[in-house]
Amino acid sequence: MDIFTDEYFMRIALSEAQIAFEKEEIPVGAIVVSDNKIIAKCHNLTELLHDVTAHAELQAVSSAANYLDAKYLKSCTLFVTLEPCQMCAGALYWSQVSRVVWGASDEKRGFQTMGGQLHPKTKVTAGILADECAALMRSFFEKKR
Amino acid sequence: MDIFTDEYFMRIALSEAQIAFEKEEIPVGAIVVSDNKIIAKCHNLTELLHDVTAHAELQAVSSAANYLDAKYLKSCTLFVTLEPCQMCAGALYWSQVSRVVWGASDEKRGFQTMGGQLHPKTKVTAGILADECAALMRSFFEKKR
Repeated sequence: MDIFTDEYFMRIALSEAQIAFEKEEIPVGAIVVSDNKIIAKCHNLTELLHDVTAHAELQAVSSAANYLDAKYLKSCTLFVTLEPCQMCAGALYWSQVSRVVWGASDEKRGFQTMGGQLHPKTKVTAGILADECAALMRSFFEKKR
Repeated sequence: MDIFTDEYFMRIALSEAQIAFEKEEIPVGAIVVSDNKIIAKCHNLTELLHDVTAHAELQAVSSAANYLDAKYLKSCTLFVTLEPCQMCAGALYWSQVSRVVWGASDEKRGFQTMGGQLHPKTKVTAGILADECAALMRSFFEKKR
């Protein structure tokens, strides 16, 4: 039995999203996994840093590359609680990450709607813990109203 | 007579690209201007930092926001020597920058080819000092061969 399922890792990304939620950030979390080892764990920090580029995925790409001391993430999987935006899809494209797994889809601002693309070699799995990831987002925007 | 023309500012972005060239980085430079004042000046650092997100524009968006202590660049113009990629177009989208001016077009990796979009409120001017910006890129790739 393999404990290292997509659900296992997505739950850790979701706990990062929860940390963002508690900081009153849009609750998105991302982790990078290499050989079942988590090498980056990040959450959205755009409000606290006053920086629109501080999305969870963008930080995760930088942080994982820093850990590996290498530009490319060819043997890594990025787990993120929400479908990446075009900026993050672009960063993932350049990183040549092996696989991207996301939770909830983002029909308004996801890269599939806004345009942009992942690297042709990157495999994609969508919808892991989608309900829980989406519920956390809904709960954030309901609180904001 | 206004000395603060698009050519004036693009020449400064080009001098940043030249610095990247000298560091053996793909020679792209970007600056952010607010009320004719340069508030960010950056060049591509992807090789030195081993970080695919270290494009000139992405650094410039972060750096300008940091200078302004504000998330949005609504009254700013970004000048960049090369048409932005989808990642940088995405960052510029989120920044709601007032205007983007680029030099050379990037038919392979520019966001107009790869997909993605700027903010609907962002004005665009393309082709400022395009020949000089393109010549520096060509010279870089010829040296690499």
